[in-house]
Amino acid sequence: MPNPTAAMLVIGDEILSGRTRDTNTHYLAGELTKAGIDLKEVRVVADDAAGIVAAINALRNQHEMVFTSGGIGPTHDDITADCIAAAFNVSISIRDDARAILAARYSDMGTELTATRLRMARIPDTASLIENTISGAPGFTIGNVHVLAGVPSVFQAMVASVLPTLKGGVPLFSQTYRVNRGEGDIAEPLEALANAYPDLSFGSYPFQRNGAYGTNIVVRGSDGIHVEKAMTQLAAQFPGDP
Amino acid sequence: MPNPTAAMLVIGDEILSGRTRDTNTHYLAGELTKAGIDLKEVRVVADDAAGIVAAINALRNQHEMVFTSGGIGPTHDDITADCIAAAFNVSISIRDDARAILAARYSDMGTELTATRLRMARIPDTASLIENTISGAPGFTIGNVHVLAGVPSVFQAMVASVLPTLKGGVPLFSQTYRVNRGEGDIAEPLEALANAYPDLSFGSYPFQRNGAYGTNIVVRGSDGIHVEKAMTQLAAQFPGDP
Repeated sequence: MPNPTAAMLVIGDEILSGRTRDTNTHYLAGELTKAGIDLKEVRVVADDAAGIVAAINALRNQHEMVFTSGGIGPTHDDITADCIAAAFNVSISIRDDARAILAARYSDMGTELTATRLRMARIPDTASLIENTISGAPGFTIGNVHVLAGVPSVFQAMVASVLPTLKGGVPLFSQTYRVNRGEGDIAEPLEALANAYPDLSFGSYPFQRNGAYGTNIVVRGSDGIHVEKAMTQLAAQFPGDP
Repeated sequence: MPNPTAAMLVIGDEILSGRTRDTNTHYLAGELTKAGIDLKEVRVVADDAAGIVAAINALRNQHEMVFTSGGIGPTHDDITADCIAAAFNVSISIRDDARAILAARYSDMGTELTATRLRMARIPDTASLIENTISGAPGFTIGNVHVLAGVPSVFQAMVASVLPTLKGGVPLFSQTYRVNRGEGDIAEPLEALANAYPDLSFGSYPFQRNGAYGTNIVVRGSDGIHVEKAMTQLAAQFPGDP
């Protein structure tokens, strides 16, 4: 059975303007790969309701699960929860379970739970909450969409909360072989190897260091023995390279 | 007149598996913002022909320009040029102008221009070349799509080649004000300010440092005087914070 597929939707003007560097995609990609879930697509969209709703609906119909990042804080530019409710055509309101979490959190901190902060308890109907061990305000899951915060530490905590509840697949084995030659020198033997092992994927990633060209060859597959055999053949073909 | 809009398409399994961290998006986002071009959407897709063609066609119809990154090297997993040709329904072959660039380059390096390396001279019909000052092999422009390499140094060189040829808009002025309070404390005054300056965008980006909450408020707009005025009001509302 093929591994489940996933998509990610990063929401936020600050990524598209170049102000903020998105780190959540790279983190999620690594965690999903370890869990045997194939991340197939990532989209980054602005804080614009129509665009968010369209992207959510496209991705949730094309992939088995979707993860979103960003736009669930208390300020006027945090519109993700409302967009998710619109995409699923459900209503949204302050929910008692989310309110209780915020009330406990702010009471611990000696801070008032204002109407503004209560915005973070707005959860679409039928969604279940995702625990946020860092700052309290929960994410949520509705259908196959998991809605997570944009702040990297909180995003990672929410991934840790939700990932164990999802059905993963076979984790990929991956090995890298470094060749001290440019891609042009290795393309032919690499293609022959790729043809010999149709169940493996062979990626080649050129680099330049101190003026010399090199290539990292990455062999991936769910059959660890095959990956090992391909690596042995690579080493025989390019001896002394690593 | 509104600024021109752009989209970016990042192509590569290695980004989706978490092996490689994409840095080209952040670079392009910053350069486009400086040029007054609004980056509206980013997609990351795998080395899969159908997915690349579909993404190219969706993005080039929705945005005034599209930039792609990755998949134009000499190996079997480099399929971007063929996918672009398919998306535009034009043929693709080794082009004399691109071949001449590669021939000169490899002659300088004392390296043979093999059939494999010649793959990098495959350019869709009607495309114009984008200069690569780093490693020779060119990118290309067809219609409103600019096809660039994935290696960051080469990507950046190609952005430098192509960006001056594009019509930009009004660069955004952007200023940041740091407030030593959580988002929940500033949401209301910030929304009032956003309503008072409908031509500006106000983003709020929470952070946590040494256990304390803070928020960066970013004010953006094409009218520098308005941005300045809004910053003055912010400073009056949250004195002593920066």
